[in-house]
Amino acid sequence: MDLLKKEIIEQCVVLGTNFLKVDMFLNHQIDVRLMKEIGAEFKRRFSDKPVTKILTIEASGIAVAVITALYFDVPVVFARKYSETNVDSGAWESEVFSYTKKRQFKIRVAKQYINSGDHVLILDDILANGPACLGLCDIVEKAGAAVSGIGIVIEKSFQNGRKVLEENGYRIESLARIASLEDGKIEFIE
Amino acid sequence: MDLLKKEIIEQCVVLGTNFLKVDMFLNHQIDVRLMKEIGAEFKRRFSDKPVTKILTIEASGIAVAVITALYFDVPVVFARKYSETNVDSGAWESEVFSYTKKRQFKIRVAKQYINSGDHVLILDDILANGPACLGLCDIVEKAGAAVSGIGIVIEKSFQNGRKVLEENGYRIESLARIASLEDGKIEFIE
Repeated sequence: MDLLKKEIIEQCVVLGTNFLKVDMFLNHQIDVRLMKEIGAEFKRRFSDKPVTKILTIEASGIAVAVITALYFDVPVVFARKYSETNVDSGAWESEVFSYTKKRQFKIRVAKQYINSGDHVLILDDILANGPACLGLCDIVEKAGAAVSGIGIVIEKSFQNGRKVLEENGYRIESLARIASLEDGKIEFIE
Repeated sequence: MDLLKKEIIEQCVVLGTNFLKVDMFLNHQIDVRLMKEIGAEFKRRFSDKPVTKILTIEASGIAVAVITALYFDVPVVFARKYSETNVDSGAWESEVFSYTKKRQFKIRVAKQYINSGDHVLILDDILANGPACLGLCDIVEKAGAAVSGIGIVIEKSFQNGRKVLEENGYRIESLARIASLEDGKIEFIE
């Protein structure tokens, strides 16, 4: 998606060899014009799949999910994150390891919001090692629903996320795939 | 806003005399068709005010903010919540007391995303006692920007939030104002 790549090159800041600061348009300040283009692109890429619901995780997936949901005309559900590990019998839940915070947490979705007939498109802003996306897939499958696919705005392709998700049989569409951030330079996979 | 009141009456669950469960369309599952109507209504109500940016707080304010931002054609910024109290010199911050969690936390916005020329519309899903909204107003003023107004989807008018915000000189537009939840019955202020 050329417009997105242009914004990444012009605006994003590379920190170290691993971290791309995208909070000027994606996950702190949100450029809603760009979000509309992103939503339309996800609609094009998944137009061959049934989608009855969009699932994401709080907080930075919500903006992408709700704008994209306008194009699919389906509800959004966002998983909640919990640091405590008590079981909630009214929720589908999954254990997720945070590489940023270096600890396990739970993600939860109230059972009534994903049903066995649902075809669920999973969306998130960034894909690195993929534990959050895997947790969302786990929740969809616990609910007896089907994962229609996984849509990612920016994929850090030098990390493991895509590999792990593809090995589990999921289709991934990433709008920008970053091959490397070495030497402060952003290289894309075309 | 009649459509919103209809959804509240038909779908929401009253718990005790104080709590209205709205997670079926507003803050866990999100009804994007209803959100579009909500965004259009905020645009109507604040059409007399300059708005260069919309500010909300993670997580449940984000959906309302991004859909409304489509009507104003301005960027969204969402404040981050932090439980640790260390100072971040690159951020505007404010102390907020959470009645739900019974403790103080900090909310932060990176300084570059609110500037002295900005006219900021503050949006949130629920208004009860108002500390989060007051904290957002505090951040806007620390940045030297102007608060254009505060838009709320559901106001619990039997709590203190509106009073406190009006005493501080802010204009509030709430799309549904709930007078009482006594005896499990939802009464609106017309």
